[in-house]
Amino acid sequence: MATSYDKLALLRAAMKEKAIDVYIILSTDPHLGEYIPDHWRIISWLTGFTGSAATVLVTESFAGLWTDSRYYIQARSQLQGSGFHLVLPLPNEIKDYTEWLESNVTDGSTLAIDGRTISIGGMRRIERLLAEKDIIYNTDADLISVIWADRPPMPFSVAFDLPVIYSGKERESKIAEVRDLMKKRNAGYQLLTSTDDIMWLLNIRGNDIRYSPLLICFAIVGEEQILLFIDEAKIPYKLAAEFDKAGIVILPYEETAAILSTLPAGHSILLNPLTTSAGLYNSIPSGMRIIEEVTIPGFLKAIKNKVEIENIGRAMIKDGIALTRFFFWLENESAAESLTELSLAEKLLSFRAGQEDFLGPSFSSIIAFKEHGALPHYSATPDTDSKIGHDGILLIDSGGQYLNGTTDITRTIALGRPTAKQVKDFTLVLKGNIGLAMAKVPAGTRGIQLDILARKALWENGLNYGHGTGHGVGFCLNVHEGPQSISPADSAGSKTIIEPGMLISDEPAIYREGEYGIRIENLILCYEDEESEFGQFLKFDTLSLCYIDKSLIDISLLEKKEITWLNSYHSSVYEKLSPWLTEAAKQWLKEKTDPV
Amino acid sequence: MATSYDKLALLRAAMKEKAIDVYIILSTDPHLGEYIPDHWRIISWLTGFTGSAATVLVTESFAGLWTDSRYYIQARSQLQGSGFHLVLPLPNEIKDYTEWLESNVTDGSTLAIDGRTISIGGMRRIERLLAEKDIIYNTDADLISVIWADRPPMPFSVAFDLPVIYSGKERESKIAEVRDLMKKRNAGYQLLTSTDDIMWLLNIRGNDIRYSPLLICFAIVGEEQILLFIDEAKIPYKLAAEFDKAGIVILPYEETAAILSTLPAGHSILLNPLTTSAGLYNSIPSGMRIIEEVTIPGFLKAIKNKVEIENIGRAMIKDGIALTRFFFWLENESAAESLTELSLAEKLLSFRAGQEDFLGPSFSSIIAFKEHGALPHYSATPDTDSKIGHDGILLIDSGGQYLNGTTDITRTIALGRPTAKQVKDFTLVLKGNIGLAMAKVPAGTRGIQLDILARKALWENGLNYGHGTGHGVGFCLNVHEGPQSISPADSAGSKTIIEPGMLISDEPAIYREGEYGIRIENLILCYEDEESEFGQFLKFDTLSLCYIDKSLIDISLLEKKEITWLNSYHSSVYEKLSPWLTEAAKQWLKEKTDPV
Repeated sequence: MATSYDKLALLRAAMKEKAIDVYIILSTDPHLGEYIPDHWRIISWLTGFTGSAATVLVTESFAGLWTDSRYYIQARSQLQGSGFHLVLPLPNEIKDYTEWLESNVTDGSTLAIDGRTISIGGMRRIERLLAEKDIIYNTDADLISVIWADRPPMPFSVAFDLPVIYSGKERESKIAEVRDLMKKRNAGYQLLTSTDDIMWLLNIRGNDIRYSPLLICFAIVGEEQILLFIDEAKIPYKLAAEFDKAGIVILPYEETAAILSTLPAGHSILLNPLTTSAGLYNSIPSGMRIIEEVTIPGFLKAIKNKVEIENIGRAMIKDGIALTRFFFWLENESAAESLTELSLAEKLLSFRAGQEDFLGPSFSSIIAFKEHGALPHYSATPDTDSKIGHDGILLIDSGGQYLNGTTDITRTIALGRPTAKQVKDFTLVLKGNIGLAMAKVPAGTRGIQLDILARKALWENGLNYGHGTGHGVGFCLNVHEGPQSISPADSAGSKTIIEPGMLISDEPAIYREGEYGIRIENLILCYEDEESEFGQFLKFDTLSLCYIDKSLIDISLLEKKEITWLNSYHSSVYEKLSPWLTEAAKQWLKEKTDPV
Repeated sequence: MATSYDKLALLRAAMKEKAIDVYIILSTDPHLGEYIPDHWRIISWLTGFTGSAATVLVTESFAGLWTDSRYYIQARSQLQGSGFHLVLPLPNEIKDYTEWLESNVTDGSTLAIDGRTISIGGMRRIERLLAEKDIIYNTDADLISVIWADRPPMPFSVAFDLPVIYSGKERESKIAEVRDLMKKRNAGYQLLTSTDDIMWLLNIRGNDIRYSPLLICFAIVGEEQILLFIDEAKIPYKLAAEFDKAGIVILPYEETAAILSTLPAGHSILLNPLTTSAGLYNSIPSGMRIIEEVTIPGFLKAIKNKVEIENIGRAMIKDGIALTRFFFWLENESAAESLTELSLAEKLLSFRAGQEDFLGPSFSSIIAFKEHGALPHYSATPDTDSKIGHDGILLIDSGGQYLNGTTDITRTIALGRPTAKQVKDFTLVLKGNIGLAMAKVPAGTRGIQLDILARKALWENGLNYGHGTGHGVGFCLNVHEGPQSISPADSAGSKTIIEPGMLISDEPAIYREGEYGIRIENLILCYEDEESEFGQFLKFDTLSLCYIDKSLIDISLLEKKEITWLNSYHSSVYEKLSPWLTEAAKQWLKEKTDPV
């Protein structure tokens, strides 16, 4: 097998041949989503670094890799002797490879990238940063395909129909609704590059990508037809016939750019610049007017319909049963076994797998014992796997894909007797979780306004957490879904107005480096409350179902209405889950959910 | 005296002569600030409408005036028989004259405006809206000067020095600090168009503008010199000598644009597009690089220094004494007099005027009885002036300019016995006021995140108010000052990070149309609290000093920490104000501020 050194030499030879001075490799694929197939894991193949987020820059004399702080230790070890070195940001510096470009790229250089792997927004940012320099850009530089001999093929799975009993709306009505909104926005065409947009619109799912039931494809929605670019073999005969009737034309995936370039000039096309690659963008005929916005399916799919909401309720019960059985087993039946973070993950998955219509985990679960919990994105590997002792804080963040919806839930429990500091921390996080869950706000409120509700109790004690409070969640789709988010960051997501029907996570936390991490995460659903003379008000329903560890709660720190919320939540957890439990587990859950 | 009809005819004749199809008149002056001198009150002279915000569009066959809803009744009456008609927005339509332009201006039209009265940002907006049309723009069209025979002259007042015992920083150090930041932003020049920026930078004040101690002037800050464009006669000899030593060159106000146009191309100039007129902007040599940002004095003056903060404390005591004497008089000594909103305003002003270093009111005070209080921007006129009865809610929003700083405070009191609804409303508003006042947040927090703290209790009860929660306040400068604001609107102000030293209003409210209005406003000062392992935290000091009417508070709705805040605030009010009161007033204030 070729070493990273050999591969780097091959890459440099290819660069020389094409007169490329700087070659950029990103950890993305042409759909610019969260999880990518092995076929596109170029950085992992090239450098040996297996983290999910990185950028590589190669010149004749330099080969550097950038990643974020959660991966520093791993990257340093995996890059050992690879020829690539880990670039760490200087203190107080912008942590980004673009800064390196700004300082190091000289006039007359040719900067190249595979334009399929960078968003047009990202490409513009590079061009803006280097605007004062005289740079030649080559965004059509795929140097990897040739040198990567044993590259994994593109994933293959067969599409299946998501019936209306789950999706709540016929494919045809979704298409009509999207076309209607396209007219209102004066968009003759719409380019869909996010595969979940297309899955939602066509009521199909697949299994191309780990953790999300997606099929790799592009689509162009026109006034009469939808061009679906996908490996034809993925569409079974019956579905193909339905597509045919609905005006959905199946075309080869590889021809997306070529066919895009034949659209009639003078028309307009709507696309999202953050999920559209520079490669596709540059194929659009120059006479087309381009409308850069969140796609219409991107907005519509965030607002769950009545049938989806009913199904999500079912998914929550299934997920809650699995979690409750898991925690019951952990506390009562696991004594004889040797437990580790990885073995717990496997056990938890087995409980979820026992549920009807379960498709798989919705992300790589985080089972983090003691100090591992302080790493917000920790995911145990055989190297880091911790033995679970009798004493310590255990954080479990996991979720499932069901035909009924996607779940994402975090519970933190105390093994043994927690310390006063742990109890106080947990209670403050709980106050934040409840604070957001109980919110009542006028229509038009944005996530950036809500964020403080989840942090207030922590802030009052000089505590905080370094990530957002809430992300959108798909319906049997991506566990992280836009366009909304709840976060203190001044971002498009946090400024998106929260609408009735949106499903959002509520996950305040605290991380004590070297000690433990605490996070409490539920999914909450926005719904319409009263309409007063001051306008329409909105509230949230907490949908996730699993007890919250009372041994970690200091009741004296809770306000009366917080206690009422907790007792009412626990009563609903018991009521909805207990019918599905054994007598022993039921009794145990009764105690876990008894009023405080 | 010419009627509006005559003036309109003269204007149309002037338009015809210059081949102008649409003439736009705005209610702004060349500094684009809040209060403008009579010389620039063109709309009032032309149409008879005296409200502070309006736009007029004139064509050969159309003469329309746009204003906002608070002025509809007044405008309808004042425009009667003027030849101008009030344009009301259709329901659910954008309420803006630009919409009229979009629908009515035809290809080939010449659209004209006096470019000194529109910001370059505003001008760009018009051009963007009409981008699809073939329009000729004339931004150099002053048609008014010629036809306005008895136009008031530009205001004249003499500059005075604001000594370092008030300003806290020598003129020279401010200039050096500004130049230092200009270097960091690569700005060779900086154009200052907001007069308060210039007052702050040069430690001077004047009396050209009502409510704000300003002098009308422009300035260009260069690396060596500051060009100050002002009527030379406004600068006394001693100040002129100091300016000379500091490299401040006095030039005629009218020559600003001409001299701006002689700056050396190839350099850069920093300016704020929201306060720079299209006229000035267009005078900048085309070879200059323009940096569009909030000006450096605009940011620096928002952060009050130690001496300013000490002075603001003194201003708050003076203002609090005046208010307390006023409320004491109202409750105990006014029985024999016939009271109206206007007579109360005069009385309150007389108490403020008795305070040392008082310069004048900081805005037109709002004394609003009963249903008048439900109009957030109500200002009594002889026509609307209400007799103050023995029973009803009285809202008083007022402020003063002192050499020690600028104040802005609202108190709402009950005359007679308040209803349960009034008490509940007041208590919810108070909870909001306290909620923001008690906030503890990490450095980096923006106003849009804080806004919910002032609204939470109202929202929980289906209530709300239609304006922002907080605005910046100047130091012996404008009572409304940027760049920060606390508001739910997605605006530059609300997204500005709140910094230690910023002075902001905290003014939640509720308006019951036809019944009453309640608002409680204090000024709060941001300061550095603890620095924990999670970063630097900030808190707020409530600086305004006046009792809060306990007869309107339902203690049972307050949380324990809110009661603690209220009692501690009241104790500080008594402690700081009582030494300056008569025995009777002191005794009365003691009761008003006794713990609940």
